[in-house]
Amino acid sequence: MQFNEFYNGRTGLTVGINKTLFSRQTPYQKVEIFDTDTWGKMMTIDGMVMLSEKDEFVYHEMLSHVPMFAHPNPKRVLIIGGGDGGTAREVLRHPSVEHVDMVEIDEVVVQAAKQFMPMVGDFDNPKLNVHYEDGIAFVERVAEPYDVIIIDGSDPVGPAVDLFSEAFYRNCYKALTPQGVLTSQTESPWVASYHPAIRNLFHSLDAIFEVSRMYLAFIPLYPSGMWSLAYASKGIQPHDPEVIDRVVKGTTSMGAALRYYNPDIHQGSFALPVFVRELLR
Amino acid sequence: MQFNEFYNGRTGLTVGINKTLFSRQTPYQKVEIFDTDTWGKMMTIDGMVMLSEKDEFVYHEMLSHVPMFAHPNPKRVLIIGGGDGGTAREVLRHPSVEHVDMVEIDEVVVQAAKQFMPMVGDFDNPKLNVHYEDGIAFVERVAEPYDVIIIDGSDPVGPAVDLFSEAFYRNCYKALTPQGVLTSQTESPWVASYHPAIRNLFHSLDAIFEVSRMYLAFIPLYPSGMWSLAYASKGIQPHDPEVIDRVVKGTTSMGAALRYYNPDIHQGSFALPVFVRELLR
Repeated sequence: MQFNEFYNGRTGLTVGINKTLFSRQTPYQKVEIFDTDTWGKMMTIDGMVMLSEKDEFVYHEMLSHVPMFAHPNPKRVLIIGGGDGGTAREVLRHPSVEHVDMVEIDEVVVQAAKQFMPMVGDFDNPKLNVHYEDGIAFVERVAEPYDVIIIDGSDPVGPAVDLFSEAFYRNCYKALTPQGVLTSQTESPWVASYHPAIRNLFHSLDAIFEVSRMYLAFIPLYPSGMWSLAYASKGIQPHDPEVIDRVVKGTTSMGAALRYYNPDIHQGSFALPVFVRELLR
Repeated sequence: MQFNEFYNGRTGLTVGINKTLFSRQTPYQKVEIFDTDTWGKMMTIDGMVMLSEKDEFVYHEMLSHVPMFAHPNPKRVLIIGGGDGGTAREVLRHPSVEHVDMVEIDEVVVQAAKQFMPMVGDFDNPKLNVHYEDGIAFVERVAEPYDVIIIDGSDPVGPAVDLFSEAFYRNCYKALTPQGVLTSQTESPWVASYHPAIRNLFHSLDAIFEVSRMYLAFIPLYPSGMWSLAYASKGIQPHDPEVIDRVVKGTTSMGAALRYYNPDIHQGSFALPVFVRELLR
């Protein structure tokens, strides 16, 4: 058996499947977990790969450590989505963290991840608070602001479509402390059908935040293998000397826990090819 | 119809095919050209994607401009392989170039590229000299050395297997001028079956050259989308200040011809994830 995810026509990714471990249509989406021939366990939502056991470290390290080291002292962190638990796991490696709110709309994602991909999450950590509700509504009524907000949603179709809207990011800005930093996953620059969503999202970030930048990561199970992420802040540049200093010290003390992210990658991932820069205009 | 290239089990790339334009078994390999649903014309050799019309600029720009700007004044350039003509096209954008030798073992690759993918090559350029012979033997008997040597071969199976051998790189070293620079394509760090070849090749380069480094590019039609390349030289570091100065000036004057490579990419592409560094040990 094979899983296919086509990003255009009949072109895309093929993954050999040994066995379907879980398959359920929830009120929001279809959640499936497969045992694959190459990448260990793999979760898909509505036919799109979310993560695999063997490549998830790239996405979760890059989405988490870039903003967590950018902020000088992140204590309160909000994760929108992220039901598999991988983003929270990386956030919780930072000793300054006191409180993490993770807002996942679909409880089935968390339950399936806990049962079939227990190597990903760190759900027993007492600093982690999981809320099963709509992240869009959650950020509208934040009382106590966050130092870091991470948008770990699925693609801009289905329940995640509003995670690409300007209104949502305006609420995120209000929900951030004065030194606040935000990151979000923003699709593949190689896939033409995502270009309008990517461009709109970055134009929104440019309008709302003092600083907004795109950065890139090699994710083999996402369409084309090139994935973009957004960095936005109220003033902290990702390559401020104090940030680089924190990255160097922090990655050294995290040691073998990190498998992708390091100081070179923190800096190099913000280098954008010519065609990607043009897409952002 | 679909084309599949599996890098492990039944996992890999799938490309929708509108039509097969060319298919021939040569004395060396099977050469095919397809019209695809997403990437324009696409050439494969022995079932492995070599290039497509719409993504070839990444590979050719990254393989060519990194060494061509590293060298202070590249006049004589040797390309081993590269039968589609894309590497020579990028090399020939550098005004210092006087003479390019391209050594392609299989004339059918050049003929098929000229007929079906004429947008790729610059074969009428009078500075380009195409030789249909074995590149391994060619570098054994170089009389007049080259400033830049580019190894643009296929995967380390079939006729290209010796392009990953230490003996070959020793001959390349001898065939380089005192400021010589070499680059080579070195497979995907995500694909476990290539790890021994990658590790051996970089250990050889470390032993032979004064400088050797890996760099990376996002190539959507190569397995996993993450592709590695080797940079080696007799002393010039890829990020020497004079090199960066040449990159900044040179990319400005090349203008819209470049679609991937720019000064940020020249520097950022040498940032290696933790798991890639570990692979090179």
